[in-house]
Amino acid sequence: MKDQLSKYKVVEEYPVHWGDMDSANHVNNLVYLRWGESCRLSYFEKIGIDTSFKSAQAGPILGWQDCKYIFPMMHPDTAIVGVRTIEKQKDRLILECAIFSKKHQRIAAISKQSIIPYDYIALKKVDLPKEWIEGIEKL
Amino acid sequence: MKDQLSKYKVVEEYPVHWGDMDSANHVNNLVYLRWGESCRLSYFEKIGIDTSFKSAQAGPILGWQDCKYIFPMMHPDTAIVGVRTIEKQKDRLILECAIFSKKHQRIAAISKQSIIPYDYIALKKVDLPKEWIEGIEKL
Amino acid sequence: MKDQLSKYKVVEEYPVHWGDMDSANHVNNLVYLRWGESCRLSYFEKIGIDTSFKSAQAGPILGWQDCKYIFPMMHPDTAIVGVRTIEKQKDRLILECAIFSKKHQRIAAISKQSIIPYDYIALKKVDLPKEWIEGIEKL
Amino acid sequence: MKDQLSKYKVVEEYPVHWGDMDSANHVNNLVYLRWGESCRLSYFEKIGIDTSFKSAQAGPILGWQDCKYIFPMMHPDTAIVGVRTIEKQKDRLILECAIFSKKHQRIAAISKQSIIPYDYIALKKVDLPKEWIEGIEKL
Repeated sequence: MKDQLSKYKVVEEYPVHWGDMDSANHVNNLVYLRWGESCRLSYFEKIGIDTSFKSAQAGPILGWQDCKYIFPMMHPDTAIVGVRTIEKQKDRLILECAIFSKKHQRIAAISKQSIIPYDYIALKKVDLPKEWIEGIEKL
Repeated sequence: MKDQLSKYKVVEEYPVHWGDMDSANHVNNLVYLRWGESCRLSYFEKIGIDTSFKSAQAGPILGWQDCKYIFPMMHPDTAIVGVRTIEKQKDRLILECAIFSKKHQRIAAISKQSIIPYDYIALKKVDLPKEWIEGIEKL
Repeated sequence: MKDQLSKYKVVEEYPVHWGDMDSANHVNNLVYLRWGESCRLSYFEKIGIDTSFKSAQAGPILGWQDCKYIFPMMHPDTAIVGVRTIEKQKDRLILECAIFSKKHQRIAAISKQSIIPYDYIALKKVDLPKEWIEGIEKL
Repeated sequence: MKDQLSKYKVVEEYPVHWGDMDSANHVNNLVYLRWGESCRLSYFEKIGIDTSFKSAQAGPILGWQDCKYIFPMMHPDTAIVGVRTIEKQKDRLILECAIFSKKHQRIAAISKQSIIPYDYIALKKVDLPKEWIEGIEKL
């Protein structure tokens, strides 16, 4: 697991809440994406992306995401979540987010996101800002 | 149940989501308060209370709430939720929110809230605005 | 929108809760998948798939899902959600779930799911049961 | 804050998720109760209360809870949550749960719960088991 984690630029730990489990007795499928969202926000802040969702600077919009469920987690456990950029396109970033079970020391889910830079004042998509690219490269 | 419902000024129906159930196989305790929150917002709008949470007009803050759990709901079912004011104090409203199971035609939970008028520009509590009192009386 | 909806075998409506919105002032990205989950469960029940998650009969596991976000919804609104099978493979079903804004009469998100039949007693994947295929064809 | 925390028997830390904030830009009122629930489960396990929700031994039911909201938390922050028993009645426990903002080093919310021992096989309330009382006294 440590080897797998080493490629992620931001790694955070989130405890599983009892209420994260659904009536199938596993962490509900949505919760993995909640963790991914929190870790993604930390990643954006480290890169220097504005996450106020109201400024003239480009902010991130989630255009698409997926999630592959590999191992069902349960409470009590802790999710170890890592995020990295896997592709830079003209008008979007593709992120990868991996979720590991700390208790079982194995991957539990893997998720990808398409992040679109958006001007929240002009209300339109913009090209990938060079500040984002520099931020990713510096990290 | 109809008799009990008749005293509530705003009544709404919300389907139970499968994911609202937790690993004890019942609707999780928090979800009743989610329903109460949605119905309360509708009630505020009917009274004419500003719910933008950013204007100079007094907006509502939840200062306290409780919930008595009477009957455990499950999916599939529909929550029938009613809200009314039970007390007007100098600087707050006390609301009562009742939650019924449509399937079982019985009360499932009852919750009370203390709602404090707040000036979101000056960032301080204010006395109960006369517009709120009039709105409640008109409803 | 009616034309688009007509191809879905199960269609349900879910009101947007105020608390479904996040601090970007839109319905949070996870909520679309919550709606999809509820509608999928209804679809399974209509087909005759066992959703107890504990019997010897094959039950459904979500192996993968994605979601394309097209139009950001807000409270108050109602989600109209439709589910259908778009592909039957040897050991899984591919479902499509479409989410429409009732207020704006337009599609808001589209999601696909890979559903794996699983024997919850033997704890292993099984081939697509013929009862599932018949159920889908009858619907 | 350290002084205040010292009286709680179980103390845990939970990071605030970005998605825990609602459109009023604060942690949603329900989330404080989610944290309380997780910490309460840890407390039950430390006392030796069966939390399987299906055994013949008495399990806990939440009969009532309240929450006083004192200071609005935001992401990023970490909740420090403490639980203790404040009253033992013939047929129930009264717990107190305090939630602190780690960033602001101050109390954010305080919640009480009424916990009823329940026989999940006979499906009826039972008196406070002496094992629970001993567990609380030992802790």
